Amino acid sequence: MTDKHCRWAGWGRETDALKLSDRPKLQAYLAETLGGLPPRAEEPPPLESIDAAPSRLSETQLAAVVEIVGDEQVRRDNASRLKFSLGKSYPDLIRARSGRIEPVTDAVVSPADEAQVAAVVEVAARRHLAVVPFGGGTSVVGGVDPRMGSQQAVITLDLSRLNELRIDENSLLIDVGAGAFGPDIEATLSTADLTLGHFPQSFEFSTIGGWVATRGAGQNSTRYGKIEDLVQAVRIVTPQGRIETRNVPASATGPSVLQAMIGSEGTLGVITSVIARVRRRAEATAWRAFLVGDFEVGCRLLRALEQAELPLAVVRLSDAEETRWMSKASEGRPSLVTRLGKWYVQQTMRRRGFESAEVCFLLASFEGSKPTVRLAAAQAQRIAKRFGAIGLGSSPGKGWQQDRFRLPYLRDELIARRLMVDTLETATTWSNLGSLYESVRETLARSMRESGAAGVVMCHVSHLYSSGASLYFTYMAPQVQGQELSQWHTVKQATTSAIVAGGGAISHHHGIGQDHLPLEAEDGPLAVAAMVAAKERLDPDGIMNPGKLFGRPGPE
Amino acid sequence: MTDKHCRWAGWGRETDALKLSDRPKLQAYLAETLGGLPPRAEEPPPLESIDAAPSRLSETQLAAVVEIVGDEQVRRDNASRLKFSLGKSYPDLIRARSGRIEPVTDAVVSPADEAQVAAVVEVAARRHLAVVPFGGGTSVVGGVDPRMGSQQAVITLDLSRLNELRIDENSLLIDVGAGAFGPDIEATLSTADLTLGHFPQSFEFSTIGGWVATRGAGQNSTRYGKIEDLVQAVRIVTPQGRIETRNVPASATGPSVLQAMIGSEGTLGVITSVIARVRRRAEATAWRAFLVGDFEVGCRLLRALEQAELPLAVVRLSDAEETRWMSKASEGRPSLVTRLGKWYVQQTMRRRGFESAEVCFLLASFEGSKPTVRLAAAQAQRIAKRFGAIGLGSSPGKGWQQDRFRLPYLRDELIARRLMVDTLETATTWSNLGSLYESVRETLARSMRESGAAGVVMCHVSHLYSSGASLYFTYMAPQVQGQELSQWHTVKQATTSAIVAGGGAISHHHGIGQDHLPLEAEDGPLAVAAMVAAKERLDPDGIMNPGKLFGRPGPE
Repeated sequence: MTDKHCRWAGWGRETDALKLSDRPKLQAYLAETLGGLPPRAEEPPPLESIDAAPSRLSETQLAAVVEIVGDEQVRRDNASRLKFSLGKSYPDLIRARSGRIEPVTDAVVSPADEAQVAAVVEVAARRHLAVVPFGGGTSVVGGVDPRMGSQQAVITLDLSRLNELRIDENSLLIDVGAGAFGPDIEATLSTADLTLGHFPQSFEFSTIGGWVATRGAGQNSTRYGKIEDLVQAVRIVTPQGRIETRNVPASATGPSVLQAMIGSEGTLGVITSVIARVRRRAEATAWRAFLVGDFEVGCRLLRALEQAELPLAVVRLSDAEETRWMSKASEGRPSLVTRLGKWYVQQTMRRRGFESAEVCFLLASFEGSKPTVRLAAAQAQRIAKRFGAIGLGSSPGKGWQQDRFRLPYLRDELIARRLMVDTLETATTWSNLGSLYESVRETLARSMRESGAAGVVMCHVSHLYSSGASLYFTYMAPQVQGQELSQWHTVKQATTSAIVAGGGAISHHHGIGQDHLPLEAEDGPLAVAAMVAAKERLDPDGIMNPGKLFGRPGPE
Repeated sequence: MTDKHCRWAGWGRETDALKLSDRPKLQAYLAETLGGLPPRAEEPPPLESIDAAPSRLSETQLAAVVEIVGDEQVRRDNASRLKFSLGKSYPDLIRARSGRIEPVTDAVVSPADEAQVAAVVEVAARRHLAVVPFGGGTSVVGGVDPRMGSQQAVITLDLSRLNELRIDENSLLIDVGAGAFGPDIEATLSTADLTLGHFPQSFEFSTIGGWVATRGAGQNSTRYGKIEDLVQAVRIVTPQGRIETRNVPASATGPSVLQAMIGSEGTLGVITSVIARVRRRAEATAWRAFLVGDFEVGCRLLRALEQAELPLAVVRLSDAEETRWMSKASEGRPSLVTRLGKWYVQQTMRRRGFESAEVCFLLASFEGSKPTVRLAAAQAQRIAKRFGAIGLGSSPGKGWQQDRFRLPYLRDELIARRLMVDTLETATTWSNLGSLYESVRETLARSMRESGAAGVVMCHVSHLYSSGASLYFTYMAPQVQGQELSQWHTVKQATTSAIVAGGGAISHHHGIGQDHLPLEAEDGPLAVAAMVAAKERLDPDGIMNPGKLFGRPGPE
């Protein structure tokens, strides 16, 4: 077990955990909006104390796998098997806290290279083993659970040993093993003054193979693109053999095989390495923050900034509720505005007639050469002025940047305070953004109420495109004790339906996994049927990550 | 028959035809490099004089189709059937000139809308008819030939009536019928100060459905992207029903169905409409032209310009041979440099020690806001200086822009002068660009010699990416009379093999059709097998454009 993975029953490293008691303002806000905060739950049971069902791997199956990777690379101890049996979704954390984990993978296998992956997959196909590829294990949609499908047992492939990285500086490309973690990739690239520019919230604990398998996005995607824009080629080991897509910048050679492998979530095969485009690190970055009168004007401002083709990198417009939340949560951190600034802002807000309950916070960064960034920041300022926005300067952005990977730690603490807390995201066109926002927000509020406890809903717009943007919702409510999973499930189902009915993508960057099934809701049953036909050609026995992406909703 | 299509046995409109005798310099250059110019060939036989095999459509089949679209929308006359039986490749033009066309489509059917397309496809599936979707018919890879496969007859679907266009100005999207032609789309968009920015050389005579079906690129793709970057969603009618991909800017919902429909070349179904991203017309455009010492230094300069992230739109680096060609072909057109400029350039070339046989011409345009373009042009000038390039100012670019759609007319004239003339293109990484250029160039020269007549090969680099670029070759040699097709075929096969062996894409923007088969050469047999499984799910009887993309090389 490498310490690059998150700790058991929580996010990241123990030492980075957050305490709500250190943030009295946030605690007060939560108590007020949720009608009181429940008492602290018990600590989750330690990993070592949890029982797991015995491994179903037969002696013959085990021997065949051991022969390939060596005995020490096939872990059968309870702790390893449990750790590789959960992702980091809210239901995963609830299950970890309960100490009742089922199903549990039958072995954690750590191949050294692509050849070993191929040999293991071949053995698995011959010996009726399901295979779950495992990168960082940070899936928030049930993407790494060890479902068995029609097989006899499950092995989880820990890909962290596939982490070699080679740079082609002429072509600004890297050829990198699927199991390389975010920080290691960026550390190597920084020595050559390069960056991949892909910073999902899970960045510190996730791998490039996982990003590609889930078709993810980083927080700077407005500049760098989603992972499907960054990947030039992949190698993938399927039960029927290896596919290596051609390492070319673009082609006109039929349907894109590459774009069929991206987002395949381990159901077609094991992505073993990725050729990805990198960029020279931007010479300059400028942050600008603004307050706008309300969410609707903020959306129009975002659209204007994006459609002016400014070199935006990170962009976020928080709705009024998230703006309130941020002002409480930033306590003890560089505050949104200094005290003097605060006085100025309040004066300006009053003069412009902003309703403080409606005010929204907007954050944008620009990257590029020094003159480009200077030009962009000035142009942004001019555009913002047209929408009556109040400039807050650059410090809120820098503060956000420091805290960008902290939210999942806060989630742990909120769950420890017996709150249901989760996020969900979608994307749609600019024309449809306002109406989708309203309908999802209403559905979240209503479904929380109806499932047992009124909650709070907040949202931001991020990941801009000329044609639209992503909506990212965070919601929380007191847990209904003893019914945590069904409470969550009711809310999840209602909101996914609202997203689909409202014309949004089922997911913009989290993926499908099990929690967003059925996939048919996105492009219709015929499209999925064609994909399933392709999947059956590559994986005729259905050994690859059963139950995900193409599975049916509900228990196995 | 609408006059939006090209004329019979040649490109574009009769009135725009070119005569080599009006360009004595070019004629002299050709005579010199090809060891004399053959005498002019006879004019191709007029369309009306050409016989076609009788339509194989039975009375019942015909009646079923007529019932859907009406009698006048099912053309069975020889002239219509012949015109819709060829694309615009060199072999197509040779066949047209020979007057021996085989196979000929059995009827040209012009549906009014998507519902009629669906009804026709359903009838075709039930009544054993192959269906060839036909947009502008400008395929240069045999994409629209009426192959029958295992069916009883072929109908060609003329999609030109599906040309409605709606604009969503908020989202900078258009929803447009697949049969809309380039000039009509841009004319409508220009009224709203918008542009799609997709200008392939076939622009005037091709449709958006064709661009999407072939995964094409426009000349300004360095800024606007290839068609797969411009398309947000498609609707496609397959024999098993309709697929409509979700109209969202991005998603994380499995393999991309959209990217599987793009490039499908009519083999999965009929693309009926496209939702595409448009942009506000750039406030400013700047052209810059340069001479560089040789091709290798030119490639390095291109790479530096692209990787500096300048807002490049059109970019072309001609090799030494193409540079010579252009200096001859531009006669009577705005010349590359004025007479005074010429003197200056010659002085500078001498001072810098340029070998005039090695000098290469480089053209670049920048688009964006006025300050962005000003900044970019200045930065380009500085970078070019580092590579010893000699600036030629903006007029060569403007001249090129005026002539951008003229080359196919010149091809007609060269064929009339009994020359084999064709183009082919690929793409690769920057690291591999020089070696792929050399190997394809050598293969072209050698295979022309070996197939009967030494020829001339020229090339330009265009369509830049951070990771690489496209190589576009033009070659010509005297025809081997009576063996025109086999002469061409020998050269084509040899160069496609060289491209594949050299690591390039089989095609960067022309597509696969019949001339680039087998598709397996790109991403391998397993990837194609998976695609074929999906194809068989959507088109179980194999009625959709048989023999293309997934077909076998060689005659039906």
